[in-house]
Amino acid sequence: SKYEHVRKYELDDELLPGCYIVIRVDGKGFTKFSTLHNFEKPNDINALLLMDEAAKAVLVDYPDIRIAFGQSDEYSFVLHKNTAIYGRRSSKLVSLITSCFTSNYVRFWPQVMGEDRALKCSPTFDGRAVLYPSEELVKDYLSWRQVDTHINNQYNTCFWALVQQGNKTPAQAQEELRGSDAEFKNELLYSQFGINYNTLPEQFKKGSVVVMQRRKVVVKMTESGVPVEREKTEPTVLHCDIIRTEAGAFWAQNPDLLK
Amino acid sequence: SKYEHVRKYELDDELLPGCYIVIRVDGKGFTKFSTLHNFEKPNDINALLLMDEAAKAVLVDYPDIRIAFGQSDEYSFVLHKNTAIYGRRSSKLVSLITSCFTSNYVRFWPQVMGEDRALKCSPTFDGRAVLYPSEELVKDYLSWRQVDTHINNQYNTCFWALVQQGNKTPAQAQEELRGSDAEFKNELLYSQFGINYNTLPEQFKKGSVVVMQRRKVVVKMTESGVPVEREKTEPTVLHCDIIRTEAGAFWAQNPDLLK
Amino acid sequence: SKYEHVRKYELDDELLPGCYIVIRVDGKGFTKFSTLHNFEKPNDINALLLMDEAAKAVLVDYPDIRIAFGQSDEYSFVLHKNTAIYGRRSSKLVSLITSCFTSNYVRFWPQVMGEDRALKCSPTFDGRAVLYPSEELVKDYLSWRQVDTHINNQYNTCFWALVQQGNKTPAQAQEELRGSDAEFKNELLYSQFGINYNTLPEQFKKGSVVVMQRRKVVVKMTESGVPVEREKTEPTVLHCDIIRTEAGAFWAQNPDLLK
Amino acid sequence: SKYEHVRKYELDDELLPGCYIVIRVDGKGFTKFSTLHNFEKPNDINALLLMDEAAKAVLVDYPDIRIAFGQSDEYSFVLHKNTAIYGRRSSKLVSLITSCFTSNYVRFWPQVMGEDRALKCSPTFDGRAVLYPSEELVKDYLSWRQVDTHINNQYNTCFWALVQQGNKTPAQAQEELRGSDAEFKNELLYSQFGINYNTLPEQFKKGSVVVMQRRKVVVKMTESGVPVEREKTEPTVLHCDIIRTEAGAFWAQNPDLLK
Ligand SMILES: Nc1nc2c(ncn2[C@H]2C[C@H](O)[C@@H](COP(=O)(O)OP(=O)(O)OP(=O)(O)O)O2)c(=O)[nH]1
Ligand SMILES: Nc1nc2c(ncn2[C@H]2C[C@H](O)[C@@H](COP(=O)(O)OP(=O)(O)OP(=O)(O)O)O2)c(=O)[nH]1
Ligand SMILES: Nc1nc2c(ncn2[C@H]2C[C@H](O)[C@@H](COP(=O)(O)OP(=O)(O)OP(=O)(O)O)O2)c(=O)[nH]1
Ligand SMILES: Nc1nc2c(ncn2[C@H]2C[C@H](O)[C@@H](COP(=O)(O)OP(=O)(O)OP(=O)(O)O)O2)c(=O)[nH]1
Ligand SMILES: O=P(O)(O)OP(=O)(O)OP(=O)(O)O
Ligand SMILES: O=P(O)(O)OP(=O)(O)OP(=O)(O)O
Ligand SMILES: O=P(O)(O)OP(=O)(O)OP(=O)(O)O
Ligand SMILES: O=P(O)(O)OP(=O)(O)OP(=O)(O)O
Ligand SMILES: [Mg+2]
Ligand SMILES: [Mg+2]
Ligand SMILES: [Mg+2]
Ligand SMILES: [Mg+2]
Ligand SMILES: [Mg+2]
Ligand SMILES: [Mg+2]
Ligand SMILES: [Mg+2]
Ligand SMILES: [Mg+2]
Ligand SMILES: [Mg+2]
Ligand SMILES: [Mg+2]
Ligand SMILES: [Mg+2]
Ligand SMILES: [Mg+2]
Repeated sequence: SKYEHVRKYELDDELLPGCYIVIRVDGKGFTKFSTLHNFEKPNDINALLLMDEAAKAVLVDYPDIRIAFGQSDEYSFVLHKNTAIYGRRSSKLVSLITSCFTSNYVRFWPQVMGEDRALKCSPTFDGRAVLYPSEELVKDYLSWRQVDTHINNQYNTCFWALVQQGNKTPAQAQEELRGSDAEFKNELLYSQFGINYNTLPEQFKKGSVVVMQRRKVVVKMTESGVPVEREKTEPTVLHCDIIRTEAGAFWAQNPDLLK
Repeated sequence: SKYEHVRKYELDDELLPGCYIVIRVDGKGFTKFSTLHNFEKPNDINALLLMDEAAKAVLVDYPDIRIAFGQSDEYSFVLHKNTAIYGRRSSKLVSLITSCFTSNYVRFWPQVMGEDRALKCSPTFDGRAVLYPSEELVKDYLSWRQVDTHINNQYNTCFWALVQQGNKTPAQAQEELRGSDAEFKNELLYSQFGINYNTLPEQFKKGSVVVMQRRKVVVKMTESGVPVEREKTEPTVLHCDIIRTEAGAFWAQNPDLLK
Repeated sequence: SKYEHVRKYELDDELLPGCYIVIRVDGKGFTKFSTLHNFEKPNDINALLLMDEAAKAVLVDYPDIRIAFGQSDEYSFVLHKNTAIYGRRSSKLVSLITSCFTSNYVRFWPQVMGEDRALKCSPTFDGRAVLYPSEELVKDYLSWRQVDTHINNQYNTCFWALVQQGNKTPAQAQEELRGSDAEFKNELLYSQFGINYNTLPEQFKKGSVVVMQRRKVVVKMTESGVPVEREKTEPTVLHCDIIRTEAGAFWAQNPDLLK
Repeated sequence: SKYEHVRKYELDDELLPGCYIVIRVDGKGFTKFSTLHNFEKPNDINALLLMDEAAKAVLVDYPDIRIAFGQSDEYSFVLHKNTAIYGRRSSKLVSLITSCFTSNYVRFWPQVMGEDRALKCSPTFDGRAVLYPSEELVKDYLSWRQVDTHINNQYNTCFWALVQQGNKTPAQAQEELRGSDAEFKNELLYSQFGINYNTLPEQFKKGSVVVMQRRKVVVKMTESGVPVEREKTEPTVLHCDIIRTEAGAFWAQNPDLLK
């Protein structure tokens, strides 16, 4: 049509080749959303599992994602540095992955959160792309997120213990924790509430690592009820340390994950 | 943490001030998705209504959107040229609007499509931002999409008439229509299938225009059953021409919409 | 060659269509450069004329430049909003115009500054591109630069009068002028130094406006010594107001300059 | 002033951290420029030396440049991946380096090209920034340019031998060389013109590599005429291979140049 000229305003936004592409999504206003939907404090297992389900669906759709990491209301997806998907167009990648995550989050909500906890509004996520020129930097990025998980979880565990068990007001709890270090918080949890921080679920302390793994999966049952297994590559959620790099640690065991 | 240095890889992506921002979302692989979910051909009224519902929810959340236009599996949202929302950050805007649209599409699916037509996969949308420096160009953009609506609808109406009523194979139908003009298609519909194209629903021929309008809304009933009305600004869906600019036409009636 | 793959790292940097492109160049470290080359204070007529010469050469090479404005060590070039030059590639435009300006500045230096004032180092300029979506904004941009010219010139005139004629130290002069308004400065110039600011050369107060103008130019002499004139479009330097828009003012007299 | 609002149209253009920044400048229309100024064919030693002088001046001004490579009318400057110069702003870097190169090219012209070969027009250069995420890619980039040097030089040497000594027209020479490989060209030079390509100056075959090197420099003479030397870090031009990486080769001898 005679209006086609408007197409030339659509500019190229290709991301620099040779760099890892990290797409991070983060829930918009989840402070309010989690209250509205009665998320358990500080960690709602189901809410976290729902995040993991949505992330797994993203990995299935985008095989160039080598690893993902999630915590709280956010998930980061790391695409291989040489991916050519959608011509590495920034908006395409950011929008599609954010949309895919959102779609699965909403679709799986009833199953994971329970039919009795209906959605009262539409959860939305923001998304962004960040480029990292080296494997080292990607590992630093993931470490950054996992350290953040730990710091926030420790803080929140103390905060809600003080509020829910210690009968403090939120303001008092905040005041008591202001500026305190990790040791102080561990001590507080143990002495006041008998909580040994180290024995809390790894899921809360470490967040979720998702990688594609070759695994035996039961694909059907024979007539006589024997499970038939087959090897399949599937997204797998781990709650392990991804900061350490020494022998035996995650990166030592997965040396080619980012190669 | 010692990993904070990775933050500086996140670069600014502010969109040029003073330009209208158009965010267009488009269903990923909806050729397949519409078949999988038995969309009526060429137009599934409920599928189109679901698109409109999702769009209306976007307008409610983002008041700087002055007008939106939808057709088929796509929707365009026009933000005012001086919007300062999220610092005009491109990824923020693209991802949030795409996510909001997706979330509402999935959430309202059962209501609008019917409980018996369950989602078999997670619908996803891509999104992009395009800048237009003038009101004139925004109108050209919207005209471009509406002309496209008309062309596609006319073609699809003929195509599916030939296939469903004319017993042609898809290949034959395609062949018959190749290179034909508007007049030929209207004639074909009328002479072969008794369809007067002009009398088809405006919704199919014109697509959906969404604007915020001040309207009387019933907010509650009095005890004696009398409806209580209040003026509210609400997203309203129109199926009108947005190409013409003469007196009486949409733009003449809404002179300040983009001001 | 087998190394061609490195080409794909060169990304597109097309500037948004439909916007005026302003390229501004500014001398790098001209505080030092002007001292090193004994520029007259506060305004060195020859140095300013050299800037104008360089700018004129840029306009001759790039016909899509509609207007340029210069002052101090800077020059701004306004390209028409629909220019398609070099595919509107940002780096191409910024680098070529900055290079062209620099090249002419150095080449014309001896002629304009005098053979006795040799270049002691290589003057360099930075450059940048700024987009403006409307004619109105371009005028505001030019007004911004011209107001700046006025403010700086008034300040510098006072400052150097105090230092050179008033026997103040630079620090004392600065102190005396801190926070003072235009009126105070005019009064100071008049009462202490007998300078009527309004009668200073327009070149200093208004900066230089360059436009292409159709003018009679002497192209040769006949054998009998009669000058032969021809109409030519040539870059012309004006020292006029470009802020006012009323009847008779520059913009009223040149209504189509930016059209 | 009330026009300051136009400043916000100036957007951030920071280049991704952690990547090597290559700035390449290239003469605009040097086919014509070299003819106009009677450059020797195919290589004008003085013209090449002038390029080297300009490049050396750039390295002196921008210490974060680790290596530069020049050939024909182009020069590439490689900035260290962690340079923070000018906040890594793309336009700043591209314009300043292009301007600095241009300025020195024009300023040194008379000295290097000879007073009798005056500049007839103002040479200008375009500039661009390209990012490379790894050392390996930077080496590939430099190899790409050096292979290009070789290919062009071999072609041009044949072409001008055929035209200047072989009495061919340019069209005939072009025809004779079309599609021929390196061996054919070497053979042609040797058999028809007695030229052994391998013995041509390295400067022509390899281009110019510029690095900062610690060297003994004569800084003055004592009264009795004894030269006084001092160690200085100075830009040094080499005409060596930068493609090979084995022991003894350039990269093996300069392992930390890009570290
Ligand atoms: N109670 C509870 N809250 C959670 C859980 N996961 C996340 N949240 C809440 C805690 C935080 O207030 C919020 C995540 O922090 P953000 O920094 O992303 O803030 P928010 O999403 O409110 O704002 P934003 O739109 O991202 O700027 O979500 C959970 O499992 N349980
Ligand atoms: N039957 C039916 N199909 C529809 C309806 N609305 C949209 N579609 C289908 C027709 C087209 O095949 C498709 C939209 O065209 P697109 O160009 O967006 O293609 P598609 O989404 O397959 O690929 P994409 O991922 O956008 O490149 O969706 C509808 O109401 N009924
Ligand atoms: N004496 C004298 N100085 C001048 C003249 N024109 C410009 N200048 C000087 C005054 C200022 O110190 C300087 C221009 O100010 P800028 O803000 O551009 O600073 P400068 O170039 O030093 O630093 P920059 O590299 O641009 O950040 O040039 C002139 O005609 N006479
Ligand atoms: N005779 C002669 N010509 C040279 C010498 N160095 C460069 N040139 C010429 C040969 C080429 O025609 C031209 C460089 O090729 P380019 O691809 O850069 O083309 P040109 O500068 O004409 O166009 P451009 O503006 O860069 O697209 O400069 C030299 O030493 N001697
Ligand atoms: O969202 P915050 O406050 O945790 O921090 P951020 O994600 O870096 O900020 P933004 O979402 O505005 O980019
Ligand atoms: O998706 P298409 O094929 O209708 O055309 P497009 O949207 O311009 O292409 P893309 O989605 O790749 O930007
Ligand atoms: O150069 P300044 O300080 O006058 O101000 P600016 O030009 O806006 O700053 P920069 O040159 O760093 O863009
Ligand atoms: O200038 P060319 O033709 O050698 O090739 P290029 O430099 O890649 O092209 P452009 O200067 O247009 O970027
Ligand atoms: Mg955030
Ligand atoms: Mg959040
Ligand atoms: Mg968060
Ligand atoms: Mg598309
Ligand atoms: Mg689609
Ligand atoms: Mg579509
Ligand atoms: Mg500056
Ligand atoms: Mg300056
Ligand atoms: Mg200045
Ligand atoms: Mg080129
Ligand atoms: Mg060239
Ligand atoms: Mg060249």
